[in-house]
Amino acid sequence: MTDLSPAATFDATLDGARTSEIFVEVVRGHFPESVHRGAAVICTPDGQIVESWGDADRVMLPRSSCKMLQALPLVESGAADAAGLGTQQLALACASHNGAEIHTSRVNAWLAGMGMTDSDLRCGPQVPDDKDARIGLRACGCGPDQTHNNCSGKHAGFLTLNRHLGGGPEYVDPAHPVQQAVKAAFYEMTGDQDYGYGIDGCSAPNFGATLKGLATAMAKMARPDQALSGARADAARRLVAAMMAHPDLVAGEGRACTGLMRALGGTGAVKTGAEGVFTAILPGLGLGIALKIDDGATRASNCVMAALLVRLGLLAADDPAVTAWTATPDINRRGLVTGGIRPSETLISR
Amino acid sequence: MTDLSPAATFDATLDGARTSEIFVEVVRGHFPESVHRGAAVICTPDGQIVESWGDADRVMLPRSSCKMLQALPLVESGAADAAGLGTQQLALACASHNGAEIHTSRVNAWLAGMGMTDSDLRCGPQVPDDKDARIGLRACGCGPDQTHNNCSGKHAGFLTLNRHLGGGPEYVDPAHPVQQAVKAAFYEMTGDQDYGYGIDGCSAPNFGATLKGLATAMAKMARPDQALSGARADAARRLVAAMMAHPDLVAGEGRACTGLMRALGGTGAVKTGAEGVFTAILPGLGLGIALKIDDGATRASNCVMAALLVRLGLLAADDPAVTAWTATPDINRRGLVTGGIRPSETLISR
Repeated sequence: MTDLSPAATFDATLDGARTSEIFVEVVRGHFPESVHRGAAVICTPDGQIVESWGDADRVMLPRSSCKMLQALPLVESGAADAAGLGTQQLALACASHNGAEIHTSRVNAWLAGMGMTDSDLRCGPQVPDDKDARIGLRACGCGPDQTHNNCSGKHAGFLTLNRHLGGGPEYVDPAHPVQQAVKAAFYEMTGDQDYGYGIDGCSAPNFGATLKGLATAMAKMARPDQALSGARADAARRLVAAMMAHPDLVAGEGRACTGLMRALGGTGAVKTGAEGVFTAILPGLGLGIALKIDDGATRASNCVMAALLVRLGLLAADDPAVTAWTATPDINRRGLVTGGIRPSETLISR
Repeated sequence: MTDLSPAATFDATLDGARTSEIFVEVVRGHFPESVHRGAAVICTPDGQIVESWGDADRVMLPRSSCKMLQALPLVESGAADAAGLGTQQLALACASHNGAEIHTSRVNAWLAGMGMTDSDLRCGPQVPDDKDARIGLRACGCGPDQTHNNCSGKHAGFLTLNRHLGGGPEYVDPAHPVQQAVKAAFYEMTGDQDYGYGIDGCSAPNFGATLKGLATAMAKMARPDQALSGARADAARRLVAAMMAHPDLVAGEGRACTGLMRALGGTGAVKTGAEGVFTAILPGLGLGIALKIDDGATRASNCVMAALLVRLGLLAADDPAVTAWTATPDINRRGLVTGGIRPSETLISR
């Protein structure tokens, strides 16, 4: 069990937060009622910072924003090709999905193709975010199974890699060959030292990174020909292409990742993570983005990522896929607009 | 409609947030993964600050944390006695309740006693937080009505006051006699200048205050004999007694207000507000508390209030009613404890 005593502190994380900037204002009437602070880094593949806010060296947990890094061993090992995976499976391996039918049906088929079922997963069951899926489960009196877990595609990828590596069934153990392969790829991509890990919501280890290291890894994913070589370069190219080809499989309807990737139209892949993390892979610009909201709020990480894509000239400020997150109205229980969310000047002005 | 452009800024609010302290750490493994900043003030009835963190003069919206102030005109006008209200109705007038049967049945009876129904309310319908209530609504194929709104008790109080004052049916209009009476009482209690208002989730105006002003108002509620007089003193005493007598009506099962008030056992009344606000009325100590989490997170405001009640010697640090919010484990989808929430040193050390 995690030690919750204040003595058990990893100071680098707290110190990093102390220099964060106010990124997002939550407005009600003429009051900015709440604010969200954070840090963001835009990097080149060789780790040069193009622009940053807050502490680029802060140590953080990327959570699901690094799923495309966790999927690299699946592809570069040859496991994906040996299992005949297509772009839909690769997109799902990078996904935090809504547990909708389009997601669970594909994960179930993927598992069945390996002679497996949801009981081979180690992510745990999760009530799906998708409303139709919830209604369906209620109608049949069923609980959710592990394929409804937003990480079930990542875990199907782990199982596919595991079959290739011949490891035991407990593939989320940090000492397991699958996680050792993930760890090696992760730190090679970020260029960071080993900061240890936390256990994620899906029970897999989630490795620590500097914000700059995470942004650099995303930039390498954006320019595999320049920054990577061989099977790693090929794996990066295929995973990013799969994410951009299937925005609906990476998240789902109503989600920032899906809406922003649809609007980007193949010019970028973006990925959210729990506790206010968001990353972007921008092949055209050859850049990577990593951002962390100090307090973990998704309303803020969505807003900041949308604002940064506008800042970089990839999306128009008035694109509905942007304003959904940068001018989100607060609509009260009688349908009145009482306020909303907006990015702060530091993200807009130059 | 609220202007979401960055130009429409009430600078005093943003400036206040810039000096906030890190109050809460969200831990995962050895990483404090997220942090919540905020400000808090502990005051005497004459506005002397006993202890504070961050900017005591920051201007904020109290949201539901000031419902007992909004209920003062109901009692001091004589409207409550004319309608024969008891302590349960007075507690409900101060409540942000879960919409459970214990809440809605009493609000419905209260409205019926005035020859009214939920259609006279102006708070809007809300899906209840109470699980049994939600199951009941689904079973009958019903949507929620306005009595399920967490503010329906406050609004029943507004209707009761309105019947006494003879105003029109649109009692949430800021110019309506009900809201004018609320505004006068609010600013008399806080001692603040008029900062304007935002429209709350329940459509009533919510008046701006300094954090210190809000804490001072709570201290006056704690010591009505000393700080108030006449009908105002009597109203304050009755409302605080009603909150302490009915912790379950002020919020509901599983909620911080209810759990903390049960543990306080008549030594204090506490009240949460949306966007990370929390207030406390402490009659024994003759003190009031007001706190605001910058980012609006309830997990943080609950943690800070529990920690402050420990700091003031009112509750034991290991009381389960406290640790529910100060050592809240994060349990993942396989039942593993992956981390949790803890107050920062500044709230614990002296």
